[in-house]
Amino acid sequence: MDHGIRSYGYVIGTKPTGAGNRITDVPGVRVGQVTIDNELNKTGVTVIMPACDNVFLNKMTAASYVLNGYGKTAGLVQVNELGTLETPIALTNTLNVGLVHDALVEYTIQNCKGSGVFVRSVNPVVGETNDARINHIQHRAIGYDEVRKAIDDAEKDFTQGDVGAGKGTICFGLKGGIGSSSRVLTFDGKEYTLGVLVQSNFGATRNLVINGRPVGQDIIHKIEQEAHKDEGSIMVIMACDLPLTNRQLHRTLKRAAVGLARTGSMVGHGSGDIILGFTTKNRIPHTKEAAVMNLESLHEDCMDQVFEAMIECVEESVLNSMVYAHAAKGVDGTVIHSLAEYL
Amino acid sequence: MDHGIRSYGYVIGTKPTGAGNRITDVPGVRVGQVTIDNELNKTGVTVIMPACDNVFLNKMTAASYVLNGYGKTAGLVQVNELGTLETPIALTNTLNVGLVHDALVEYTIQNCKGSGVFVRSVNPVVGETNDARINHIQHRAIGYDEVRKAIDDAEKDFTQGDVGAGKGTICFGLKGGIGSSSRVLTFDGKEYTLGVLVQSNFGATRNLVINGRPVGQDIIHKIEQEAHKDEGSIMVIMACDLPLTNRQLHRTLKRAAVGLARTGSMVGHGSGDIILGFTTKNRIPHTKEAAVMNLESLHEDCMDQVFEAMIECVEESVLNSMVYAHAAKGVDGTVIHSLAEYL
Amino acid sequence: MDHGIRSYGYVIGTKPTGAGNRITDVPGVRVGQVTIDNELNKTGVTVIMPACDNVFLNKMTAASYVLNGYGKTAGLVQVNELGTLETPIALTNTLNVGLVHDALVEYTIQNCKGSGVFVRSVNPVVGETNDARINHIQHRAIGYDEVRKAIDDAEKDFTQGDVGAGKGTICFGLKGGIGSSSRVLTFDGKEYTLGVLVQSNFGATRNLVINGRPVGQDIIHKIEQEAHKDEGSIMVIMACDLPLTNRQLHRTLKRAAVGLARTGSMVGHGSGDIILGFTTKNRIPHTKEAAVMNLESLHEDCMDQVFEAMIECVEESVLNSMVYAHAAKGVDGTVIHSLAEYL
Amino acid sequence: MDHGIRSYGYVIGTKPTGAGNRITDVPGVRVGQVTIDNELNKTGVTVIMPACDNVFLNKMTAASYVLNGYGKTAGLVQVNELGTLETPIALTNTLNVGLVHDALVEYTIQNCKGSGVFVRSVNPVVGETNDARINHIQHRAIGYDEVRKAIDDAEKDFTQGDVGAGKGTICFGLKGGIGSSSRVLTFDGKEYTLGVLVQSNFGATRNLVINGRPVGQDIIHKIEQEAHKDEGSIMVIMACDLPLTNRQLHRTLKRAAVGLARTGSMVGHGSGDIILGFTTKNRIPHTKEAAVMNLESLHEDCMDQVFEAMIECVEESVLNSMVYAHAAKGVDGTVIHSLAEYL
Repeated sequence: MDHGIRSYGYVIGTKPTGAGNRITDVPGVRVGQVTIDNELNKTGVTVIMPACDNVFLNKMTAASYVLNGYGKTAGLVQVNELGTLETPIALTNTLNVGLVHDALVEYTIQNCKGSGVFVRSVNPVVGETNDARINHIQHRAIGYDEVRKAIDDAEKDFTQGDVGAGKGTICFGLKGGIGSSSRVLTFDGKEYTLGVLVQSNFGATRNLVINGRPVGQDIIHKIEQEAHKDEGSIMVIMACDLPLTNRQLHRTLKRAAVGLARTGSMVGHGSGDIILGFTTKNRIPHTKEAAVMNLESLHEDCMDQVFEAMIECVEESVLNSMVYAHAAKGVDGTVIHSLAEYL
Repeated sequence: MDHGIRSYGYVIGTKPTGAGNRITDVPGVRVGQVTIDNELNKTGVTVIMPACDNVFLNKMTAASYVLNGYGKTAGLVQVNELGTLETPIALTNTLNVGLVHDALVEYTIQNCKGSGVFVRSVNPVVGETNDARINHIQHRAIGYDEVRKAIDDAEKDFTQGDVGAGKGTICFGLKGGIGSSSRVLTFDGKEYTLGVLVQSNFGATRNLVINGRPVGQDIIHKIEQEAHKDEGSIMVIMACDLPLTNRQLHRTLKRAAVGLARTGSMVGHGSGDIILGFTTKNRIPHTKEAAVMNLESLHEDCMDQVFEAMIECVEESVLNSMVYAHAAKGVDGTVIHSLAEYL
Repeated sequence: MDHGIRSYGYVIGTKPTGAGNRITDVPGVRVGQVTIDNELNKTGVTVIMPACDNVFLNKMTAASYVLNGYGKTAGLVQVNELGTLETPIALTNTLNVGLVHDALVEYTIQNCKGSGVFVRSVNPVVGETNDARINHIQHRAIGYDEVRKAIDDAEKDFTQGDVGAGKGTICFGLKGGIGSSSRVLTFDGKEYTLGVLVQSNFGATRNLVINGRPVGQDIIHKIEQEAHKDEGSIMVIMACDLPLTNRQLHRTLKRAAVGLARTGSMVGHGSGDIILGFTTKNRIPHTKEAAVMNLESLHEDCMDQVFEAMIECVEESVLNSMVYAHAAKGVDGTVIHSLAEYL
Repeated sequence: MDHGIRSYGYVIGTKPTGAGNRITDVPGVRVGQVTIDNELNKTGVTVIMPACDNVFLNKMTAASYVLNGYGKTAGLVQVNELGTLETPIALTNTLNVGLVHDALVEYTIQNCKGSGVFVRSVNPVVGETNDARINHIQHRAIGYDEVRKAIDDAEKDFTQGDVGAGKGTICFGLKGGIGSSSRVLTFDGKEYTLGVLVQSNFGATRNLVINGRPVGQDIIHKIEQEAHKDEGSIMVIMACDLPLTNRQLHRTLKRAAVGLARTGSMVGHGSGDIILGFTTKNRIPHTKEAAVMNLESLHEDCMDQVFEAMIECVEESVLNSMVYAHAAKGVDGTVIHSLAEYL
């Protein structure tokens, strides 16, 4: 069994990983992807399913954090106000956000029909990064069929690297993609899981660092075309089953900055760095059952454990997205190498 | 010539209006609308064109303010980060945001071709309110053709009331819609214009107030079905030619709360109250021409004048949206009356 | 028994008030005040005690909202991050914030000694408005003794009007001061109380409105010196025993804008409009007892009831602060009349 | 001449430093400090003077960013609203914020007397970290005299390490303190300077990293008592003479997270990480001279250069604060070593 960056001898952080070292170690969370790989288009969609049941009817406690807002992520206004997530989270390319947004509307309408709920309003959450150096992005190749298939195919097991929304992304001048990691935390004798999935598409080559080693400094001499600027964006999705409020999730998401910095990010002006997270604890029913609901929350003194798990997962997810990705050819003919070639 | 709420004897505020008492009094600003009015669909799209030239190539200084975030407006992340607007602003119904978002992507691609700019990334701004009580909202009747026509038809002169994105909206239990108003300000002997356009779809009937008169208290007895809750949302778009920074625009937008409260809004939980604004001053070129740019800013002591203009415009725009709108029939057969019937 | 603005025939809103129509109707909440009234100084301090026990050891769930940030309120950074309040809230004049801040530090050190807790860090919350037109504000007359006395004297019963931190304030060109109001809410058959206390010091005379009546328009002709600008600030403190999270408290606080607008506020540039709130439900122990804590939260569909209570309380608190206040003489000799003279 | 961390062979980043590699390389910026070093108190105050003239009469364009809000910094509400700084920035210990706040009020009153301006309102900016492990913090040893002396003594040349507000701080379990660094940037052929000053008091020993080297891993075995948690706070003050707006300053300040992460910060729950910055460009007169003011702004495509300078300065400032600091003894007798002992 492959273990991403760990198979190259790099152990990120000190906390124990979940069974699969992936976001889907969080019970109920699944990932589905559709990859478009034809002459014109190298792009795709990656869907994070927060639960096995209907998340619109039974919403997730959620939060978002905008580390750098040069991005087009849709849905944050309502997530921030209500602290809830009511659709799968879909990741795709920058110009495809509208069509994927519409696909999540259609999916929710269809998915609620069986439950007898007529959907008048729904807040789709769609993230993106820009894959225009590899993909003919103006084509907007992802529509309802692709999103629907990604949702229907979602499972615990999923592929990392140059797949789904990561098909055409570039990270530190090397091939980026989808990467994931997870950590297990114990509070009051009970185990919880926090997992992260990233769509990596940022970074200047010279800045790439692995566990403190400035590997990017070597790599700039070995590749045709280094990435001079830290641009292109990263989406970070966090899932957990921890007893956290919306405010505590928000605090946790802010720590993504540290995980990204450890890989060499400088949170460049042109990089839309957006973090989204939810817990499967503290679910909120669409229809009020009682006025007063019970929530669980961690005592704030426990948050450092959660922050460290977040930081380690973000760092490892980025590196995993790179070592799992295969080399690709850009629309201008340049070869975008895989980090795996240099480790 | 008709003058909206003023023709009923209500003069809102004390500041002078622009020539047309509309957002298009701001030089360069135009409005285009497409209304869908068939058996199934009563909806539409309203487009605010910030300039006569290409706003992608020469961006507007802009800001947003989320008064209540139960809404699906797209594009705010980047507006907030960069302080710029680079597309027309399109308003539509809640479930149609994705398709209109995609239409603005296509429009920008097409519109930049002539200038030789290949668009890899663009941040469409799409606002919405929910017209499901009058419109079969799940149909999502607005696509590229409708958005494109609204853009192409945009001009200084435009209709208010139950048109465009206001075709199916309800305000204080009466027919809502598109409304507008403007004010003229003078600083250092020079005249400036601030204008507002709203898509009104909020308010409990009992709360409706006109210039301090609690007219809603009477109207609840005269209509079939009062609006019990303040829900449904309002979009407020502000345009001006004032020398304002992004921070000053943001302060101005926050005052929309006062204008809305004067009409009887309580900023209900279920009402997505989103405010967007831009100035045609302080434009930012897409391509860097020089590192250092000159901006103009108002001394902060002048801001009260701007705030008052904003408040008056918001209040009058909401009332105009209602008196210009004709009665309509809801999908359940209820008649939604026009405020004009009761004045 | 006197009933503030209600004794003049104005009933604000529709919800039932608490027994005393004051913030202290919330069980456990007490108010203490010290008024300085000598030749030089007309100022004071008003302290809101959130609980009868030690709030440092058992913190309140809290939030803040900055409606307009032209103000010097201290303590918001930590309230926003941790969602907790750990000291009494003290209100005073603008230039006295530092000394009152220090007094709350000393109080907390002393108050925790008995419990064997050595205080290394504490986040005092101090609000202010500017009473320089009546008070010789540069003297900073409030020190530890005054704050300590206000704390020690705090009780359920307290005086409104030109007392404590409201001794020298001016509202709509008339005498402002301390005002309060409360509302009772019922959820799932259980009663809850929400109360507000304001330190009022804002408003242009021409804009004063009582229950929709533009009384300010008359008053400008009757007083020596109208307030031309909406400046000077207002502090709004909300207390409740509702099951609310930090996020829900924040949403509630935002609605203060509506209550203020109903009295005629335009949220002027020069008015620091700061809102702070806490619930006595969901208390957070200083020392971790268990990792996982139980919280209670209202289903979001109940929030409109809470918002309405907030709006009504803010509106009535401002009016109460004015009718309870006696006329005063400004440092320049002008008489600042009481609203009570004109009702 | 000593060069801080550079004298140990570590060159941080790639950009050229200013002449003194300190915040005072920004023209007009000066630093003054008073250190209390007696049996009871090991603490102090560090004052950053933004200009040689009166900053109250001619304000600085400024911004703030709260990376982690477990802190008591005062003054941010108004800095955020108005985008201006109108006093020196004073740093001290946590419990001393109130008295230092009051001292800045008194200073501003006195300082404006000569100009004939009667100060009714002023927004002091006071930052802090917690020095309770070395200092008897409850004594609050800093009052008006100390602040005034620090202001009066401020000059271009100043000492780094365990001085002023850094006298009693601890960083990564070693002695922390005051540290500084600067970078020179060139735009359109013109040179600009960005400088940073930190009060360092954060970090878990095991996490300390210098230029990628995990030196903390070695040091934990060499010191009596490692810091297990990342707590205690850091203040980061940035000054520059760049043509930046408040929004651009804010973006720049957010990048402090990357600089801190490069030293090993995980932005711990108990660490108040507050960033404040200003530019000496774009000054705003206290009294309106004309309604319209001219500002200069950088084209956003230049921001990456500014971000990199910020990141490098933050990283180097933290390391400088440590190597310049001498070992100290904690109140419990533990020796807090200097990083210089291990390089």
